[in-house]
Amino acid sequence: MYVLKGNAMVGQSGGPTAAINATLSGVIRGAFESDAIFNIYGAFNGIQGMLEGRYCTLNEIIKGEEDLCLLENTPAAVLGSCRVKLPDPEKSDTEYKKIFDLFRKLDIRYFFYIGGNDSMDTVAKLNAYAAVIKHDIRIIGVPKTIDNDLVGTDHTPGYGSAAKYIAVSIQEVIRDCAVYTVNAVTIVEIMGRDAGWLTAASALPRIITGAAPDLIYLPECTFDYEEFFTDINAALDKHPNVVIAVSEGIRFSDGSLVGASEQSGKTDAFGHKYLSGTGKALELAVKNRIGCKVRSVELNILQRCASHIASKTDIAESVRVGYESITAAVAGVSGQMMNIIRISDNPYKVITGHIDINKTANAIKKVPRHFINDRGNNVTDECAEYILPLIEGETNPMYRNGIPVHFTIEQ
Amino acid sequence: MYVLKGNAMVGQSGGPTAAINATLSGVIRGAFESDAIFNIYGAFNGIQGMLEGRYCTLNEIIKGEEDLCLLENTPAAVLGSCRVKLPDPEKSDTEYKKIFDLFRKLDIRYFFYIGGNDSMDTVAKLNAYAAVIKHDIRIIGVPKTIDNDLVGTDHTPGYGSAAKYIAVSIQEVIRDCAVYTVNAVTIVEIMGRDAGWLTAASALPRIITGAAPDLIYLPECTFDYEEFFTDINAALDKHPNVVIAVSEGIRFSDGSLVGASEQSGKTDAFGHKYLSGTGKALELAVKNRIGCKVRSVELNILQRCASHIASKTDIAESVRVGYESITAAVAGVSGQMMNIIRISDNPYKVITGHIDINKTANAIKKVPRHFINDRGNNVTDECAEYILPLIEGETNPMYRNGIPVHFTIEQ
Repeated sequence: MYVLKGNAMVGQSGGPTAAINATLSGVIRGAFESDAIFNIYGAFNGIQGMLEGRYCTLNEIIKGEEDLCLLENTPAAVLGSCRVKLPDPEKSDTEYKKIFDLFRKLDIRYFFYIGGNDSMDTVAKLNAYAAVIKHDIRIIGVPKTIDNDLVGTDHTPGYGSAAKYIAVSIQEVIRDCAVYTVNAVTIVEIMGRDAGWLTAASALPRIITGAAPDLIYLPECTFDYEEFFTDINAALDKHPNVVIAVSEGIRFSDGSLVGASEQSGKTDAFGHKYLSGTGKALELAVKNRIGCKVRSVELNILQRCASHIASKTDIAESVRVGYESITAAVAGVSGQMMNIIRISDNPYKVITGHIDINKTANAIKKVPRHFINDRGNNVTDECAEYILPLIEGETNPMYRNGIPVHFTIEQ
Repeated sequence: MYVLKGNAMVGQSGGPTAAINATLSGVIRGAFESDAIFNIYGAFNGIQGMLEGRYCTLNEIIKGEEDLCLLENTPAAVLGSCRVKLPDPEKSDTEYKKIFDLFRKLDIRYFFYIGGNDSMDTVAKLNAYAAVIKHDIRIIGVPKTIDNDLVGTDHTPGYGSAAKYIAVSIQEVIRDCAVYTVNAVTIVEIMGRDAGWLTAASALPRIITGAAPDLIYLPECTFDYEEFFTDINAALDKHPNVVIAVSEGIRFSDGSLVGASEQSGKTDAFGHKYLSGTGKALELAVKNRIGCKVRSVELNILQRCASHIASKTDIAESVRVGYESITAAVAGVSGQMMNIIRISDNPYKVITGHIDINKTANAIKKVPRHFINDRGNNVTDECAEYILPLIEGETNPMYRNGIPVHFTIEQ
């Protein structure tokens, strides 16, 4: 087999997760072990830093196992991230020239881009451009997103940890809400503009400890206020403390966002539109219609960076996917996204593989309809059982004086 | 010594914390060991349940060490809580008669009420009433509140766990916010209407790992928008990602709440006033004045029920305070609140004691001015060092399939 030898570069892109640094650690581990790769460079802020010539030499920064372990328990993106999308190279190839100039300057023969949907678009474009200019380089997309909405993989690294945070937090919210006897509705807004995977994770305690939100609304089903009020009243007939999990991206039948609808025409003291959010919109609606005590809780960015309650399964898989991306690239793979293939449910077993990047970039995997109940106000046990193995196990972050120690890289 | 023998009752009151069940466990442990106490009853929903004759027999429910351990790692109030305040007995003694009828019926000679400020008022009133009617009973207040605002104790059980959650979460938020290069302000709203103890805990990572919010605003200092904008611009001059921790209770010099000010006159689609909250108000103000990307995150009830990241020190002290309340009561103490006395800072050492309930009920302990910097936009290292030992250590909740197992009692 022809072994391409040279240096490697890795970048992180898109929204932070609790596992994206674990994937980076896997890439570094793979590079350290490979005879084909000499230096492993880290691009600061993804392709944004590459366009600006900002990068670091990871094999000089990472001193060994302790650093890698800290890195695996550090949330967000230690190299920084970006939301830059490359243009069509036929319209403008300035950025492409800059990036490949950097590749030539540093003798980069392997490029790994850890990210979500948009990042896979970048991988596809760079790979196509390399073929056109006949530059010998292997370019691999390494998936990460808390949203779990990438096609071509059983699930995405990063999802399991966010799902665990959501499951653990919703159970605590349910305990909190149970202490009083007056009728009260608590609405928990969870991330997910297009897909309800994160919100679906709120159902997990139901099949383990019995604590469950009464109602769960995903963007995959049309939202209707009348049905919503009926559902809440039915839940209040059973017990006084109703807890509802809702995706930020739920929409009415006309396609408009529920969160946006309450904001229309309303402005703050400065003339800005109120961006109240979906939870707040529902809170106001319930207060008006049902009149009981109502509260909304937005998990916000906490749900994507909570490495202190990361899933051991997710972190281990994230490292593995990063590591295997090196193996695949050295074996000749390029223009592919690494993926996770579930080969057994019970016991849960996965292998890693890779698929054509063009089959996954810019596509969205939604929660299938049979994972949602008929009424569209909860998820099925089958859905919960698909998610459950992904949150298994607890990590052991290092604590100093009660606070987790993170690994950081100064730019 | 005269040993009063009979049964005991314990109730929980006020807002949930991650440690109030640990205190309950301590009371149960003490009751189990005491020769003076036969049955230990749990009042459902505090004095509300006592008025309605709702209670359980804890010595029949708690089977042993495993149950007690689960209880200590369960957030909120397993017996339920209430916000009932007893009237002046000279104006109306109906409630008092009902409660003491229950005491007589069950031969209750020891009553322990776990709660915050309002609950200590209940303890004071019941104790005074018992003296008036010459009913031989020992009544003890056992402190808990995440707010840490009770006078007469170095700190309150429950505060350390909430402080740990805040310190850990703010560090994760800081990591999350650091990934992009564009100027952005993230405002984290933390509980505390009158005292800034919880918000002050956001400074803890600074002295341990160096991760720190740029600015911290407490209700103890007057808030001024012009100074706020100046502070933010100075922080943005240093780095693009500014993180601000702010108490929900910050006020302008005229005494009005900053959160309320942005809501005045603004109504939603149903004619309700927008309850945007302090973080949202500041978010809108920064967006208008500075114009950069702004986001607000409200820790909301998550910060008071996060038993998965409870402080081992706090949980252990909460158990101890509950346990010692039994020892004190059996020794003849009544009409007192248990307290924690710090006898050494380095090493951190505490003992438990008790103070006259009338010296603590209805009073508020604020963050002293010397714990806050001159500018009023951060806390001092002395403040952080006072809080730090309270978040030391991690608990070991039992997990099943990735989710903590809680102890629950059916009513």
